[in-house]
Amino acid sequence: MSNSFGNIYRLTTFGESHGLAIGGVIDGVPAGFPLDIEAIQHQLNRRRPGQSALTTSRNEADKLVILSGVFEGQTTGAPIGFVVENSNQHSADYDSLRNVYRPSHADYTYQQKYGIRDHRGGGRSSARVTIPQVVAGAIAMQILATQGIKITAWTDSVGNIKIDKHYSQLDLSTIDSNSVRCPDSDKAIEMERLILEVKNQGDTIGGTIECVVSGCPVGLGQPVFGKLQSMLAAAMLGINAAKGFEYGMGFEGCAHRGSEMNDSFVADASHENGISTSSNHSGGIQGGISNGQDIYFKVAFKPVATLLKEIATIDQNGYEVALKAKGRHDPCVLPRAVPVVESMAACVILDALLMNRCAKI
Amino acid sequence: MSNSFGNIYRLTTFGESHGLAIGGVIDGVPAGFPLDIEAIQHQLNRRRPGQSALTTSRNEADKLVILSGVFEGQTTGAPIGFVVENSNQHSADYDSLRNVYRPSHADYTYQQKYGIRDHRGGGRSSARVTIPQVVAGAIAMQILATQGIKITAWTDSVGNIKIDKHYSQLDLSTIDSNSVRCPDSDKAIEMERLILEVKNQGDTIGGTIECVVSGCPVGLGQPVFGKLQSMLAAAMLGINAAKGFEYGMGFEGCAHRGSEMNDSFVADASHENGISTSSNHSGGIQGGISNGQDIYFKVAFKPVATLLKEIATIDQNGYEVALKAKGRHDPCVLPRAVPVVESMAACVILDALLMNRCAKI
Amino acid sequence: MSNSFGNIYRLTTFGESHGLAIGGVIDGVPAGFPLDIEAIQHQLNRRRPGQSALTTSRNEADKLVILSGVFEGQTTGAPIGFVVENSNQHSADYDSLRNVYRPSHADYTYQQKYGIRDHRGGGRSSARVTIPQVVAGAIAMQILATQGIKITAWTDSVGNIKIDKHYSQLDLSTIDSNSVRCPDSDKAIEMERLILEVKNQGDTIGGTIECVVSGCPVGLGQPVFGKLQSMLAAAMLGINAAKGFEYGMGFEGCAHRGSEMNDSFVADASHENGISTSSNHSGGIQGGISNGQDIYFKVAFKPVATLLKEIATIDQNGYEVALKAKGRHDPCVLPRAVPVVESMAACVILDALLMNRCAKI
Amino acid sequence: MSNSFGNIYRLTTFGESHGLAIGGVIDGVPAGFPLDIEAIQHQLNRRRPGQSALTTSRNEADKLVILSGVFEGQTTGAPIGFVVENSNQHSADYDSLRNVYRPSHADYTYQQKYGIRDHRGGGRSSARVTIPQVVAGAIAMQILATQGIKITAWTDSVGNIKIDKHYSQLDLSTIDSNSVRCPDSDKAIEMERLILEVKNQGDTIGGTIECVVSGCPVGLGQPVFGKLQSMLAAAMLGINAAKGFEYGMGFEGCAHRGSEMNDSFVADASHENGISTSSNHSGGIQGGISNGQDIYFKVAFKPVATLLKEIATIDQNGYEVALKAKGRHDPCVLPRAVPVVESMAACVILDALLMNRCAKI
Repeated sequence: MSNSFGNIYRLTTFGESHGLAIGGVIDGVPAGFPLDIEAIQHQLNRRRPGQSALTTSRNEADKLVILSGVFEGQTTGAPIGFVVENSNQHSADYDSLRNVYRPSHADYTYQQKYGIRDHRGGGRSSARVTIPQVVAGAIAMQILATQGIKITAWTDSVGNIKIDKHYSQLDLSTIDSNSVRCPDSDKAIEMERLILEVKNQGDTIGGTIECVVSGCPVGLGQPVFGKLQSMLAAAMLGINAAKGFEYGMGFEGCAHRGSEMNDSFVADASHENGISTSSNHSGGIQGGISNGQDIYFKVAFKPVATLLKEIATIDQNGYEVALKAKGRHDPCVLPRAVPVVESMAACVILDALLMNRCAKI
Repeated sequence: MSNSFGNIYRLTTFGESHGLAIGGVIDGVPAGFPLDIEAIQHQLNRRRPGQSALTTSRNEADKLVILSGVFEGQTTGAPIGFVVENSNQHSADYDSLRNVYRPSHADYTYQQKYGIRDHRGGGRSSARVTIPQVVAGAIAMQILATQGIKITAWTDSVGNIKIDKHYSQLDLSTIDSNSVRCPDSDKAIEMERLILEVKNQGDTIGGTIECVVSGCPVGLGQPVFGKLQSMLAAAMLGINAAKGFEYGMGFEGCAHRGSEMNDSFVADASHENGISTSSNHSGGIQGGISNGQDIYFKVAFKPVATLLKEIATIDQNGYEVALKAKGRHDPCVLPRAVPVVESMAACVILDALLMNRCAKI
Repeated sequence: MSNSFGNIYRLTTFGESHGLAIGGVIDGVPAGFPLDIEAIQHQLNRRRPGQSALTTSRNEADKLVILSGVFEGQTTGAPIGFVVENSNQHSADYDSLRNVYRPSHADYTYQQKYGIRDHRGGGRSSARVTIPQVVAGAIAMQILATQGIKITAWTDSVGNIKIDKHYSQLDLSTIDSNSVRCPDSDKAIEMERLILEVKNQGDTIGGTIECVVSGCPVGLGQPVFGKLQSMLAAAMLGINAAKGFEYGMGFEGCAHRGSEMNDSFVADASHENGISTSSNHSGGIQGGISNGQDIYFKVAFKPVATLLKEIATIDQNGYEVALKAKGRHDPCVLPRAVPVVESMAACVILDALLMNRCAKI
Repeated sequence: MSNSFGNIYRLTTFGESHGLAIGGVIDGVPAGFPLDIEAIQHQLNRRRPGQSALTTSRNEADKLVILSGVFEGQTTGAPIGFVVENSNQHSADYDSLRNVYRPSHADYTYQQKYGIRDHRGGGRSSARVTIPQVVAGAIAMQILATQGIKITAWTDSVGNIKIDKHYSQLDLSTIDSNSVRCPDSDKAIEMERLILEVKNQGDTIGGTIECVVSGCPVGLGQPVFGKLQSMLAAAMLGINAAKGFEYGMGFEGCAHRGSEMNDSFVADASHENGISTSSNHSGGIQGGISNGQDIYFKVAFKPVATLLKEIATIDQNGYEVALKAKGRHDPCVLPRAVPVVESMAACVILDALLMNRCAKI
């Protein structure tokens, strides 16, 4: 259960940081879809380590190998099995962590839960587990694109530096024009500066990512436990380092009154069913089901736990030890988490789209 | 899929606002547990409408009837089927809504998704669907209590009125001493005043609920898609009107540095495995798995969509209509949502506790 | 898990023999279907005890009460919750079984697995647990009928008395013309005579049921673990007293050669895609997927374990005791199992039909 | 859904006959188990093609590569990802099948369901999809062995040649002493002769496999849809070419009376709880739950559909064509299916064993 996500479009993953490979199986891929492998690799490259000074220097090609489910360029309805090799491990960097628990990392909880742990590179707790998520998401995004659905995420804040415009005022085509993946070029410069500053201090910094799903038809999601926001929240909180999720007006909207927050319905011939809303505080979902407006949400990411300065912690026997991490780590996960957020959103939306085919007689 | 929640301890629900009854089936209840029916009814009463001036005046006894799975007071391992009658419906109040879409409600999305909807009392989108959640949660809480696990939620903010103390400084035994369910008595008075004020204006107001799980052992949750925070987020976003979820330092913590947010491990003989942490910014979960510290999180609830003043909207044919809701509605969901938050948290924790029995050989 | 069946069209059940009620929740019912409640009750009546001298004399009306999911006669897409009251329990008849294990019954295994058991009427092991299966199946059959799919089961053998004709030579409209539900009137008389004979001896007898699904489109089922025969087998072996399942030429066909068993494809404009087969040894399924021919299979049912003559067994302390069952029992489950077989088949086929909507892009 | 099997111990598979590799992910493997990789490879070798004159001449090493979930020889609780390369494909042999439907094969149903098919080697319908099943089963068997549970399958019949002894009279240690995997050496010779005879005729033959699970504790399986026999039946009917399943006295027992078929309980200090049965017609399962006796069942396998003589069939356009298969095929699946039956049984039993940890409080 731990390692599968989705109902119809369903991803199952495997792999650790320093194992032979990371990979997965995607079940429920509709047959007859012409797959663009390069577009998948492109998303993997956006998630790849070593792409800029803001990210870890671990150098992995992260080259996708698809093992099944595709015939003469098209999906066959059979599960898509795939692997990405781990090639640039420096396992020796982690020798000192074999018996030591890094603060705010998964070392202690894994050891207690399982009685054993692969301490090299964090094992299964490594951010490399998001590779298969990006593969499944990139495929989902291709399929969704044929339905006019587009998913775009970007870095919304780093530390206290935050975009202060509504996303409709941003040029989302510029997201990849800077290494922090922020569509506000002024803020991007500030964010980059801040990340490099904390990096130089051996420290790390958190932030938020915003994501918009546009072109989503009315009807995705289900009334109670299958609410679209529930699936999105589960997906997002499953990403390493995520600490929070909000959609529509989120936490801020809760301080307001119903008369301020309600979205009035208006006749609008340009929308599905000729109906639109005059505002979109709801964030495109009402009663758990998409209403045809943009779905937008934010995800909070904590600062990376592994610092590159000496810290005090304890070992498996409860003795205090001084620890200075050697491995290669990101000072800030945000830039590389952008494609992961997009990917998990795409998995949720495609799954909901397929399930919706069964809603009516 | 829409109507089941959980893996081992699994709730499946049914029922609409104006149908004969609301109910559910709880699968995976461990056998041999002496059930305290009155304690379940007590939680239902905390969720019940009509309990104070702050809530809807719909008067429902919400009397639980257990139909199966219990023999001579003990659980048998067979599923627990149960019903709660709907008795105080005023369906005629909703006649005007048959062809009209209330703003920010589920009317429009249900109609489009299913091509049909039970407009009476909101049908399946009614807050009455949380009744079975409270039943399953109350049973889970009883079982968890025998393991020393306690779950407590309270109203943390209403509008801009917000508790400004850490929960360790609050007397959580006072939560039910006021009708808003806030353990800070000064803030409680302000919150009540605000809710009555917006109610008198025919308006509604949102807020946040905080929840703490104490006594949770190390090891609950799983590394990737089964992260404990992922399950909690899915549970919380599945509650009517929820717009956001954060745990530990949440959104705020993301503005900070790793050196500020990390929780140092310390030897502490009073804790499981003799290990504790000197702070708990992580919120009791690391790497998706509980670490033995308090698990705490917040849920944002939007203002209720149904206002008791005239509003402009459109009907199923796209014509503009003026609407003044007649039914009985809450001006603020917070007080009644407190036991729902506790209940869904309890379902998640018990499920994780049972699944954890299979983690090791 | 134990108490849910199906993927999209999904039944969850509850209830024991002597509890207040038996019931269930059906999730995934497509919206907008006009439900024929009387047709469901008709199937329940075919399963009902007390309908003839061949069945138990327990007299239950088995009146269906639908609690949700239907509005103005049509399904809404919300889950259908329903109950059937238990009214004619004679719990005192079972007092002697409280500490005694009946041979070949579930008494011993339940007690050991759960440490507790509801001994009255067999508790959850009672054939009354098939009531919700018949309700879900009857609804599925109505939906399938609109797609031209028809499911028909009948008693194929009782003891050594066996229909020796292919089903195409039988008049299936006569199944309900005799109380054993056998469409071969000569064999029916022999079967009835045999059942009454064993009943008079305080004994019981087994047999086989055959079932045909006609009008099934090409494409239902999936290649590996979701093979249509796999789902059917799971469904059938889940019915009380079932001991075996075979489809197409089944066990007998395995003694033959490929050249005898293969079904040649032939052009046939009257069939879907203009393709048919010249024989149907495959039983309408090839590679796990329906091929448009009749799907037919047989289910073996053992003789009822509870005899109405004195037998020797042991009690919970391992002491030998003499036991003479008092309750009311069927001498042969076959006649009443016929609608149960149809129902579970219908649930499988409808589920596969809905899942198939997601096969292609 | 199609490509996953199991609840806690859960296998997800991928791969086609002529793709790069076949593989899978095993979730829910308990942590801390020292894995014997050679023992897994041994089971794969028993399933391997080319091992004797009775099997296809396709020569595959079927070398297992484990990619994750194992650290220093022990399972970590992380999913075990694995691949087995396809290396000896002769895809050109299948060119003639691109547009032609082989009788009783999956060609037609796949084409219609998905609108596309990988015709090379049967694609996903190839018996190579059982490779991951053997891997997961071999791991399960190792874990079960530590609990004293042993699973053994053998060829029970080929065509009309059938073992006529109860399995307790057979020396099961001799199963692998002949290439047909039959523990009755006289029958084995006859079976081998028959298979070679049909092979020389370009024909194929079916048969049955029997399997015994010994040492299984009381309590595995669940009362209704999770009956142990239901899980076993689903597992077995999911194996390529399986046409039927029966357990205990199966179809034959259904012709008998309850007084003949019931298994009397007897006090027996050598058994769990001091309780045994004087016979075992039930096949070790009562009320869906294991009772501590041997679990035994049979699976019927049809003759392989692909014949090596010219046959008449039709192509995708409905035109009649003469077809002579070129690929390399088994004249009889039985010998190679023996480890597959054992493997799927092991997956079911281990899953039930793990789930049973949650039965009681």
